Amino acid sequence: MREVSIIGVGQFPVGEHWEKSIRELAYEAIRDAVADAGVENFGALYISNMISGQVTGQMHIGAHIADFCGYRGIESHLIEAACASGGAAIRAGVLAIASGAHDVVVVCGVEKMMDTISDRVLRALATAADAEYEVDQGATFSAINALAMKRYQHEFKVPNDAFAPFSMNAHSNAVHNPNAMFRFPISKERYLKAPMVAPPICVMDSSPICDGAAAVVLCASELASKYSRKPIRIIGSASATDSIALHDRFDMLEMRGVTLSAQRAYQQAGIKPEDVDVFELHDAFSIMATLSLEASGFAERGQGYRLALDGEIAPDKRVPICTRGGLKARGHPVGATGVYQVVEVAQQLRGEAGETQVADAKIGMAQNIGGSGATVVTHILSV
Amino acid sequence: MREVSIIGVGQFPVGEHWEKSIRELAYEAIRDAVADAGVENFGALYISNMISGQVTGQMHIGAHIADFCGYRGIESHLIEAACASGGAAIRAGVLAIASGAHDVVVVCGVEKMMDTISDRVLRALATAADAEYEVDQGATFSAINALAMKRYQHEFKVPNDAFAPFSMNAHSNAVHNPNAMFRFPISKERYLKAPMVAPPICVMDSSPICDGAAAVVLCASELASKYSRKPIRIIGSASATDSIALHDRFDMLEMRGVTLSAQRAYQQAGIKPEDVDVFELHDAFSIMATLSLEASGFAERGQGYRLALDGEIAPDKRVPICTRGGLKARGHPVGATGVYQVVEVAQQLRGEAGETQVADAKIGMAQNIGGSGATVVTHILSV
Repeated sequence: MREVSIIGVGQFPVGEHWEKSIRELAYEAIRDAVADAGVENFGALYISNMISGQVTGQMHIGAHIADFCGYRGIESHLIEAACASGGAAIRAGVLAIASGAHDVVVVCGVEKMMDTISDRVLRALATAADAEYEVDQGATFSAINALAMKRYQHEFKVPNDAFAPFSMNAHSNAVHNPNAMFRFPISKERYLKAPMVAPPICVMDSSPICDGAAAVVLCASELASKYSRKPIRIIGSASATDSIALHDRFDMLEMRGVTLSAQRAYQQAGIKPEDVDVFELHDAFSIMATLSLEASGFAERGQGYRLALDGEIAPDKRVPICTRGGLKARGHPVGATGVYQVVEVAQQLRGEAGETQVADAKIGMAQNIGGSGATVVTHILSV
Repeated sequence: MREVSIIGVGQFPVGEHWEKSIRELAYEAIRDAVADAGVENFGALYISNMISGQVTGQMHIGAHIADFCGYRGIESHLIEAACASGGAAIRAGVLAIASGAHDVVVVCGVEKMMDTISDRVLRALATAADAEYEVDQGATFSAINALAMKRYQHEFKVPNDAFAPFSMNAHSNAVHNPNAMFRFPISKERYLKAPMVAPPICVMDSSPICDGAAAVVLCASELASKYSRKPIRIIGSASATDSIALHDRFDMLEMRGVTLSAQRAYQQAGIKPEDVDVFELHDAFSIMATLSLEASGFAERGQGYRLALDGEIAPDKRVPICTRGGLKARGHPVGATGVYQVVEVAQQLRGEAGETQVADAKIGMAQNIGGSGATVVTHILSV
C-alpha cells in the first residue's frame, strides 16, 4: 500500500456555537487545515458526521460543505459509523490515497448538537445503539454505559472514586488546549459531588454535548515533503466491529472490536503497545477509557483504571492519554471527535502540544469508538 | 490503480416490506451476493443508506448489519451522499480494494421507506436538498424537480407529453424484471391522465417510495477468476459534486456534476459515450433522465427527451436506458438505488437480463445522482 501522511491540521474550538451553521463550522476547520498544509487543490473531501439529518435536517453534507467551502465539482461523500465516524472518514481518505485515485484528500469531521432540544439530541445519539433491542426498551447511551460500569465494579470490586483520576487528567490537560470546551481543572471532591446521570455514571464520568469541527489534509507520503516541513506518517489504519447491542457480547467487559482494531493497526505499524508514546483514546465515559486501555493491550483485564489511579496517564508518565482534554474535557462533538483525536496526536508528534507536550513523542495512536464498542477505528501515527 | 471486478450480485425485490427490518432486508441481498460470488470471507462490508436515522431510528448500520449477517469483527462503515449513496459506497469498495487494504469487499445498499407516515419520509428525503435555502422555504424534492422541468419546457418549447416515453420505456422493461416494483406497462393515455404531484411533474414522471436492498461482491481483478466464471470489470469509477441548491447553479438546466463525473469515468475507461451499450441512469423524475442524457454526452442541450420520443432508449435501440425498469418502475429505495443500478448493468454484461437483454452488451454505465444533481457517481463496467 502507498503510505499516507498528514500534512495539515485544523480545528475550531469545541463548544456552543449557536451562531454557526454546520457548513460554517466545517469551513473554519477546512480553511485552517488547507492553509496549514499549503495545498491549493485536492482530489476529494470526505466528511464525517452522525446526527445532522436528525438534528439540523441536513443530509448530503458532503456536497453541501464542498460547495460552501468553494470546492464545487470535487468528489465529496459522508462516512458514518456513529461516534467512530471521524476515524472511519480518515480511513476512507487513507484508502483513497493508497489506491492512487487521489494524491491529496481533505477529511473534515463536523457535528452540531446544540441547535435543538436535549431530548432530540439524546434520541439522535441513541440511534447508535440497537433501535429494536436497546433503544425501544428505553436505553440511552448513558444507561448502556452505566450497565457496563456497574458490571465492571461488581466483577472487579472497584469503587466509584477509582474512576475520578480519568476525569481529573482530562480536565487538567484541557486547561492548556485553546480548542477544548472545559478549560478548568477538577478536584476529586468535585468528582464525588457531581450529580448522577445514570448511576454509577456521574456528570464527571460523561463527555458533553457540544458543537465542533476538525480537519486534516492527507497526502501520499512520497509527495508530502513538497508541502509540509513536518509531515506525520500514518503507519497503521484499521477498523473492526463488534455486536451493536451490549447484551449480545460474549463478555460485556471485553471490547473485542477494540482488540481487533488495535491488533490490526499494531501489525501494520510493526509495533507493540509499549511503543506508543501518546494515546488519544475514546473516553466518552470513564468506563470506556478503562476498557479501551485493557483491550488495546495497555493493562490486564480489570486493571485499566489502575493506570489512572497510579498516575500513569499524565502527559509526562508511562501511558499519556487524553493529553488535550479527551472527549471528557476537550468535548465530544460525536461525528467530529475522531478527527480531533488525529489532529491532537499529529500535534504531539510535531511537538506543538504546548504545556501538555509528551516529551520526545515519536509514535502516537488515536482510537475512535462508535456506540458501546460496535465500531472501532484505530490510527497509528509516526514522525 | 489495481483493477476491481464484480464477482457476485444479489438483490431483494423492491416493494413494500412491512414484515422486514432494515437489517433483514440487507441480509437478503448480502446472502445472495455472497452465494453468487462463492466467497467465504471478505475484508470489509460497506453499507449505503440515506434516511434510516430519520425514519427507523437506526444509525450506525454498518456494524448493525455486519453483526446481524454473521460478520461480527469485520470492517464496516456507512457511506452517504443522499440518493447517490449506493454509487458512493461502491466507489468506497473499489478504492479499498485498489489500495491493497482488502482483496474482497461486499457493498450493500439498503433503504426502508415505508415504515412511517409519508410526511416523515418526504421530510427525510428533503434533507438531501439545502435545508436553509430550499427546504425551509417549503420545497420538497418533487417541487425542486418541477422547477427544473418547467424551466426546461419553457426554454426548449417542450410539451408535457414529450416526457411520456421515458416512463413508458421504464414500465415496459420492468414487466420482465422479477425485482421491479411496478411490473405493468403503461400507455401514453395513462401517463396523460396521471394526477399531478407538482406541476408539470405527474405521478408517472416520479419514482416511488419503497423498500429495497441490493449488494455486490467486489474483488481484485487478478483474483476474480478464482471465484467467478463471469467477472465484470470496473473500468471507470468517478464522483463529482455541484451546488446543493438548484438556484445556485450557473445554469439550472446544465448538470455540471453529471458532466464532470461522466467525463472522469470515460477518461479512466478510455471510452466515449457512443461506446456505452447500456446506460442505467438516474430517472428519479423524467426531467432528470433528459438532463442526464444531455450532460453525459448522449444528446445535445435541450435534445435529451428526443432520444425517448424517437424510440432510441429501448433495449434493442441505440441508447438503452432503464433496461430493468429504472428508478421509475424498478423503484427508488433511495440509499440502495445506486447498488441496484450496478447489479443491473452487471446482469446485462453477463447476458442474464432475460427479455430486456441488450444484444452483445460489452460496456455498461451506471450513474447515480444525489439531490437535484449535487452528487453524481458514475461507474463504467466491461466484460
